[in-house]
Amino acid sequence: MKLRSRHLLGIAELEPDEIVAILDTAESFAEVGGREIKKVPALRGRTVINFFVEPSTRTRTSFEVAEKRLSADTLGITAAASSLVKGETLLDTVRNLEAMSPDFIVMRHPEPGAHELLTRICRSSVINAGDGGHEHPTQALLDAMTMRQRFGRLSGLKVVILGDIKHSRVARSNIQLLTKMGSTVVACGPPTLIPVGIEKLGAKVSYHPDAAIEDADVVMVLRMQLERMKTGYVPSLREYARLYALTPERLERARPEAIVMHPGPMNRGVEIDGGLADGPRSVILDQVTNGVAVRMAVLYLLAGGEREDAVAATGAGR
Amino acid sequence: MKLRSRHLLGIAELEPDEIVAILDTAESFAEVGGREIKKVPALRGRTVINFFVEPSTRTRTSFEVAEKRLSADTLGITAAASSLVKGETLLDTVRNLEAMSPDFIVMRHPEPGAHELLTRICRSSVINAGDGGHEHPTQALLDAMTMRQRFGRLSGLKVVILGDIKHSRVARSNIQLLTKMGSTVVACGPPTLIPVGIEKLGAKVSYHPDAAIEDADVVMVLRMQLERMKTGYVPSLREYARLYALTPERLERARPEAIVMHPGPMNRGVEIDGGLADGPRSVILDQVTNGVAVRMAVLYLLAGGEREDAVAATGAGR
Amino acid sequence: MKLRSRHLLGIAELEPDEIVAILDTAESFAEVGGREIKKVPALRGRTVINFFVEPSTRTRTSFEVAEKRLSADTLGITAAASSLVKGETLLDTVRNLEAMSPDFIVMRHPEPGAHELLTRICRSSVINAGDGGHEHPTQALLDAMTMRQRFGRLSGLKVVILGDIKHSRVARSNIQLLTKMGSTVVACGPPTLIPVGIEKLGAKVSYHPDAAIEDADVVMVLRMQLERMKTGYVPSLREYARLYALTPERLERARPEAIVMHPGPMNRGVEIDGGLADGPRSVILDQVTNGVAVRMAVLYLLAGGEREDAVAATGAGR
Repeated sequence: MKLRSRHLLGIAELEPDEIVAILDTAESFAEVGGREIKKVPALRGRTVINFFVEPSTRTRTSFEVAEKRLSADTLGITAAASSLVKGETLLDTVRNLEAMSPDFIVMRHPEPGAHELLTRICRSSVINAGDGGHEHPTQALLDAMTMRQRFGRLSGLKVVILGDIKHSRVARSNIQLLTKMGSTVVACGPPTLIPVGIEKLGAKVSYHPDAAIEDADVVMVLRMQLERMKTGYVPSLREYARLYALTPERLERARPEAIVMHPGPMNRGVEIDGGLADGPRSVILDQVTNGVAVRMAVLYLLAGGEREDAVAATGAGR
Repeated sequence: MKLRSRHLLGIAELEPDEIVAILDTAESFAEVGGREIKKVPALRGRTVINFFVEPSTRTRTSFEVAEKRLSADTLGITAAASSLVKGETLLDTVRNLEAMSPDFIVMRHPEPGAHELLTRICRSSVINAGDGGHEHPTQALLDAMTMRQRFGRLSGLKVVILGDIKHSRVARSNIQLLTKMGSTVVACGPPTLIPVGIEKLGAKVSYHPDAAIEDADVVMVLRMQLERMKTGYVPSLREYARLYALTPERLERARPEAIVMHPGPMNRGVEIDGGLADGPRSVILDQVTNGVAVRMAVLYLLAGGEREDAVAATGAGR
Repeated sequence: MKLRSRHLLGIAELEPDEIVAILDTAESFAEVGGREIKKVPALRGRTVINFFVEPSTRTRTSFEVAEKRLSADTLGITAAASSLVKGETLLDTVRNLEAMSPDFIVMRHPEPGAHELLTRICRSSVINAGDGGHEHPTQALLDAMTMRQRFGRLSGLKVVILGDIKHSRVARSNIQLLTKMGSTVVACGPPTLIPVGIEKLGAKVSYHPDAAIEDADVVMVLRMQLERMKTGYVPSLREYARLYALTPERLERARPEAIVMHPGPMNRGVEIDGGLADGPRSVILDQVTNGVAVRMAVLYLLAGGEREDAVAATGAGR
């Protein structure tokens, strides 16, 4: 099957069958990373512009690796280097990039809605690599891929997302994806960091980690932005860690086969115990590995590829 | 035919037949940007160093896209990252780059004359991507390509360049190219922003936009650097806009088929009316698209390619 | 033959036969830089992450050119752009890079020992591109290649390293390589800039350039970091230049066929006379050219290639 849109703006726009198609395709591409020659010719001669108006190492690098493994030509533009500093509007900047005939614009931008604006003027495919606190769809997809690898399914799981839900696009995209696929999501954190109305996305709310983690299959810990201390959302790091960090004791309450996730970068000893991050239940590095495969799949499918052809494209069936 | 020099320092050094050869070759390459596989093998295994001592998004990106579409290997070096900050002289930096055997050095540098200095020590081809207020030859070539596409010729046109002529390498390169090709150029702006002696390059001078635009075929609006306000060249943005901005009323005085150009980035509502920039007479995005094709042509011809072979190289004749 | 380790952390770990194998392989690759198509397919589909936690133009560029000439896919990550600024530990950052399955991590890092730490968690090959004041193995290898080209051997030479030995990883790697290969190294500079215990690496020590240079085959001049003035290591630039700079008079004392080296970037008129740097005895630009070849050789051999196959891989024997 093919994706219905040629853009990937958010999980909100994806149907469950599209999510499954992306994950299946990603599994085909995952195999490429393990080869000696980590390259398939699927996007040879296509141009991808990576336009990051917010700094990012891991997402930008993951996209760039994915693009190169598909043999695409890549260009990186960061905000500091960009004409934005000369006062040009976002739309004029993008119209200019677009006039150079790229096939994809992968954009991170601090303002929700910036990507939607782009799709009105772009023939190229727009991929959202994070937009403020709104959506980060490829992160939710790589998280889903990681859960499905462990449990063989995305339905009937209990997933606890723990931490600063309010400022997290990762939480928002995950809640939507997981509820669409039939899992239960509990958003858990201090009352100041749970946004009003998060239930409307499908999440249950809890302010008590011990209760929330009871019988969980997945505990996804979010990064505690240290800046939140200054702005009064939490009283102190020590207090936050005591009340909300994922510790071995708290994880005891989850199911025996429960896994620990974190989108990174981690503050060890703040939101997560360092031993858990490195322990046998942690799938944190699997998330990173799967990120490359999911982004290859998204690029491949948005370029018009079909899930069924990905196996052939990668030669994974050999 | 081949170009006479293996460097492109400025329009000043080009003969009319060379300009025509570049534009013809660019038309062949323009077709590549519209394909699914936007790549020709013409410069496979050649190395291009993009050495930008001044910040630039659009020119740097346009060169990089052009180089990748020709299958060249590209490297980017910006001033901040460079050894220049450690006090090394420009010549020592370039001698070092040169010792790595690049085929091209594409350089933007704030000092006119820096490029000429390079040609004395470089076996590689030096391309001027902008040198202070002196020349920006690939910009004038892409502008010429855009005009020729609309009018079928570069002779007998009346081209008004409107704005800050004094600080504009774009104006200087365009005046030289267009007068060489038989067109008339009027440099129009406030007296403080028209440099003494610009007539020697072949331009007429006007301080009155309404009169200058009368019967024009092309109005090329220049960016108003907002810094000029502080240094007293113009009294205020509002005053500048009232007296010199291109507005629909002013454009009425031009020929019915007249086109509007701008090298970007634009200050909408300052030097140009936003509606005009987006309107049917605007060829501003064509300029950007043609920029990639012109730069492909320049790289191809400087590498020793011939205009006649470009059609074959691109397979455009298929 | 193959290298014994899959990492290159320092000259300290290399045996003489490995040094010879790298230099022989580099000679095969040197030929590639002189061709029209400067590319061999040896590392096609391999991924190299260039992770520079300290700024560098020449080393970073040299590695990138080398990687592209081997057809590898390259990614650049600099400290400013990296998650390190968000407070992530070095090991977590590298674990994340590693999870994307690179084949090589080329790292420059201000702390000696950082690379060794990486080898404990990385399946990929780690290459030290400079670690504080400790080692810079590819620099010593390119220096050795340059000396061997001139003298046909690395044994029995007298090499004077002149300048700030204390802060120089270049000096430390060169002393180890040259003494392993049977040459004599004299470390010469002001007493404040000769570290205690440098003799243990195999160098003789001198505070008197005139005496040290007597009968030298090679004078390798080190960059005088201008910051050292402020911190009191040397009284003034003028004083330093008078006492320690390499001048034509001082070079007279060396052997008639002696060569002048400098790792760059140079301060002409401070540690080295500008005329000498450009003169017939200078091999400073040969060092840069050889840097690309040596890095190609190191990447090729660490990837499991054999010296004997490099000629075939490059087609150098054609």
